[in-house]
Amino acid sequence: MANGPIILIALGGNALIKKGQAGTAEQQFKNLELPMNQIARLSRKYKIVITHGNGPQVGNLLLQQESCSEVPKMPLEIIGAMTQGQIGYMLESSLDTALMEIGITEEQQFVTLITYVVVDENDEGFKNPTKPIGPTYTEQPARGLPYNMVRTDRGLRRVVASPKPQTIVERREIKKLIDMDFIVICGGGGGIPVIRQNRKFRGVEAVIDKDLASSVLAREIEAAAFVIASDVPGAGVNWGSQNQKILGKVSLSQVQQYAREGQFPAGSMGPKVEAVMDFYKATGQRGIICHLEDIEHAIEGNAGTEITT
Amino acid sequence: MANGPIILIALGGNALIKKGQAGTAEQQFKNLELPMNQIARLSRKYKIVITHGNGPQVGNLLLQQESCSEVPKMPLEIIGAMTQGQIGYMLESSLDTALMEIGITEEQQFVTLITYVVVDENDEGFKNPTKPIGPTYTEQPARGLPYNMVRTDRGLRRVVASPKPQTIVERREIKKLIDMDFIVICGGGGGIPVIRQNRKFRGVEAVIDKDLASSVLAREIEAAAFVIASDVPGAGVNWGSQNQKILGKVSLSQVQQYAREGQFPAGSMGPKVEAVMDFYKATGQRGIICHLEDIEHAIEGNAGTEITT
Repeated sequence: MANGPIILIALGGNALIKKGQAGTAEQQFKNLELPMNQIARLSRKYKIVITHGNGPQVGNLLLQQESCSEVPKMPLEIIGAMTQGQIGYMLESSLDTALMEIGITEEQQFVTLITYVVVDENDEGFKNPTKPIGPTYTEQPARGLPYNMVRTDRGLRRVVASPKPQTIVERREIKKLIDMDFIVICGGGGGIPVIRQNRKFRGVEAVIDKDLASSVLAREIEAAAFVIASDVPGAGVNWGSQNQKILGKVSLSQVQQYAREGQFPAGSMGPKVEAVMDFYKATGQRGIICHLEDIEHAIEGNAGTEITT
Repeated sequence: MANGPIILIALGGNALIKKGQAGTAEQQFKNLELPMNQIARLSRKYKIVITHGNGPQVGNLLLQQESCSEVPKMPLEIIGAMTQGQIGYMLESSLDTALMEIGITEEQQFVTLITYVVVDENDEGFKNPTKPIGPTYTEQPARGLPYNMVRTDRGLRRVVASPKPQTIVERREIKKLIDMDFIVICGGGGGIPVIRQNRKFRGVEAVIDKDLASSVLAREIEAAAFVIASDVPGAGVNWGSQNQKILGKVSLSQVQQYAREGQFPAGSMGPKVEAVMDFYKATGQRGIICHLEDIEHAIEGNAGTEITT
């Protein structure tokens, strides 16, 4: 019911499944308590939008459909849609409990929206797919599969494109729902990737970086702060040396310098830093990377890596 | 963008997967063209809410998770949430194409909402689960599974409760979205079943009749018409005799009489008839059962079985 500024919180996959966990439903619900209790309290002061990753859940569904010849395999964009339903339900359910515990269930409405993200069919990513997904195959079973494959230590893996997100299709719907004081859960897994053909959309086999897509959405809904919460306390530099540190408040030019030095690995901290930099450059608003434990502290300005002038 | 009356259209599972089909993504998208072209045209005159079944999709996901020991099995309510994402995406995508073809994509907004349905934990259904779901097991593998089982011709099947839907948790959200001229896709598979514990909700292992749940929602959003569209042209009586016929306009008392005679089989036409009767009794508004081909004709009053005074 807050009339405060809009905050977009992008939850890492580890908000649901921690490293080393198999990812039972019980584990995922348990893990969600930590971020959701904070988000419930924040909803008193801010309008909240929650986005989330879906990597492990997509991986599990792909494994299951590879294991079962009786059922037609679904393309990746439909698997993505399934995880939006699955994770959206778990987030809503946890949020409901968290809101109830602080006594604001009844008046606070929330919705989970199936969300698409538009990508460019000419994106370089489609020419050279590099993102491994799904199970590891041995040479023989992999032979007949209609996938691009990459060789890893353990065997062959399917690779798909990870094109740049351009715009969230439901941005206007999401903005309207925020204006009506809904907490909105959306943009799961970065959104279901679609390309524009004439005026309609077509699903494509790709995965989207959820931090980059969340950055686009944060801009489109005019968020006052964009927070990426995962299992690290912020962006680290000089890792492994005596000067290693987690960045706190850091200027855009300094962070750009670190990025040029290759301090932020592609596929993990790289896109997170890019996402908050893009947001800050476009809006001048707060872009923060923090630990799942520190979401409230980070918004108060007391934790995480935050881009400043 | 219509300011007309609200129509709730409940699509049968066969809107997506026809009898005898395996249910590839291509088949499902193709099948959706017929209902979605009609719904796109209707959106010019009416505010539209779409609900849908999920039986075959749930069955497929259960089969897949039974085939794969590497991935933790998800409880039924999460499987239901997955199908809401999956089918919601397919419906949206087909609707988008259909709206584009008649030139009203840009101004018509639509959303898919993850939806819960509240059931009573003391519902008789929980004491004696009767609804078979998922794969057929042979004696041996079935032994270790923590399920209620029923013996069928082909082997053992898991049975779960099918409790009565009481209220749709997101009814207020859905109503607000309709008032804002969104086409709303929701209530997939009758909703994710939850029970109330204190003031919060907990998912339960059950399946919900999507027609009965849609009837509840139609009432709660004050629909002017509630249409159940599947692969039969209406409610039939005296089937197999010389007097067999599909009912057209039929009085409530007449339909109640037929129901008492057992004309409408449980598990197929029975709940459909009950759903439209409930709606008509509660609201005096139009309750219609029709073929997927006839949605527009039925709303014009020229097809299907419709309850009247």
